[in-house]
Amino acid sequence: MTLAYDGRPFRGFAVQRGLPTVAGALTSALERTLGAPVALAVAGRTDAGVHAWGQVVSFDAPAEAFDPDALQRSLNRQLAPTIAVRAVAEAPADFHARFSATARRYRYTVVNRAVPDPFLAATAWHVASPLDVGALRLACDPLVGEHDFTSFCRAPKGAEEGASLVRRVTEARWVAAGDGILAFEIEASAFCQQMVRAIVGTLVAVGLGRRRAGDLSAVIAARRRSAAERVAPAHGLCLLLVRYGAEHG
Amino acid sequence: MTLAYDGRPFRGFAVQRGLPTVAGALTSALERTLGAPVALAVAGRTDAGVHAWGQVVSFDAPAEAFDPDALQRSLNRQLAPTIAVRAVAEAPADFHARFSATARRYRYTVVNRAVPDPFLAATAWHVASPLDVGALRLACDPLVGEHDFTSFCRAPKGAEEGASLVRRVTEARWVAAGDGILAFEIEASAFCQQMVRAIVGTLVAVGLGRRRAGDLSAVIAARRRSAAERVAPAHGLCLLLVRYGAEHG
Repeated sequence: MTLAYDGRPFRGFAVQRGLPTVAGALTSALERTLGAPVALAVAGRTDAGVHAWGQVVSFDAPAEAFDPDALQRSLNRQLAPTIAVRAVAEAPADFHARFSATARRYRYTVVNRAVPDPFLAATAWHVASPLDVGALRLACDPLVGEHDFTSFCRAPKGAEEGASLVRRVTEARWVAAGDGILAFEIEASAFCQQMVRAIVGTLVAVGLGRRRAGDLSAVIAARRRSAAERVAPAHGLCLLLVRYGAEHG
Repeated sequence: MTLAYDGRPFRGFAVQRGLPTVAGALTSALERTLGAPVALAVAGRTDAGVHAWGQVVSFDAPAEAFDPDALQRSLNRQLAPTIAVRAVAEAPADFHARFSATARRYRYTVVNRAVPDPFLAATAWHVASPLDVGALRLACDPLVGEHDFTSFCRAPKGAEEGASLVRRVTEARWVAAGDGILAFEIEASAFCQQMVRAIVGTLVAVGLGRRRAGDLSAVIAARRRSAAERVAPAHGLCLLLVRYGAEHG
């Protein structure tokens, strides 16, 4: 199932008892429609306030009662306007939204104008001081490749403590969409928590002239969270799409 | 002063005691900055929930203390993110945001897709059933010209009871922006209350096949509000721009 959602009303994707979450809203609607308990798998566990355009979830449903179109309509009636189910399809029995995914692509939007825009306030970070787009572009290059991204990641806790933060970034670039709108798009096999927002926070520091574009290699090499800048705000980030191999096209 | 605002948090432009309004927020911020009482004039009194991109307001300010750039920065700091002051300029003493205006242009956005889009939910009316764009376009034509728009207007009350509802529409057209996004743009010397939303409600009924495109002339001629359809939702409407004569360019 492919989902778009406005992250602002939610405390992130993952269920937290007593708090509004995307998984909480979706699971309730699914269980109401299917009349059975549902366990969701998700491609990218977005943090509080982060949006999605192409989030993917999977779950087991009783085959005899499964009508993808009717399910989509029912969920959209229950979940609008903050969550939209863009597509529902039957998948092979071994498909798992998280483990079958081969890549995730995020977009972070910055609006770089002196005057804020009320219609972009929900989906873009307003940076009032002029950004050096050439420096932003240069600074991306060291990100591409397989690196230990400890400098940009929240230290894993609990069951994941000590987990590897090595990730393979296949693309990282800024796209100027005109009118001061700058979108940073990054694709990787997987991301660790807060990685895109910490990268954007650091790149924007370069764009503002507070750091040099050449610093990025050293920041990566430092493998200390304090070597990078603070995270950019959640509301500029959107999980754009998730890729699956040919067998799960 | 040119303003953009997200209309959703406000009960319309005009001040209402104890309720959040654009004029209320703006007047407080202006008085705080200028240190003197301010009486606003406004080009288009938008209703509750209606947005603006190019609203124009005017007011008297003490000449000796007037620094347009500093005022703009101060207001934007106070009013972000829902209201943005896009421009501030000194005007001739006889300029009046409402009475000097020669035309207003509104845009009403419809998103015509089976599945709603969470990122357009704030600024467009989601119409799930397919619209006949050819019929929508044909239906616009009778609107252009000078007509009595009683069929599309809320009956004037209080001091304005019995006021003429004759208005001169200079342009009315649908623009297809791709991906199911349809924008209705209409320009007139002036509009009466709820006029654009009642016109859109009626045009969409044509687009859905519930009425014929040819009906519009008869609806205008009827001069009865009940001859037209109910208003389209407020959140699809935006006051796009206001025109002034060459003397107030």
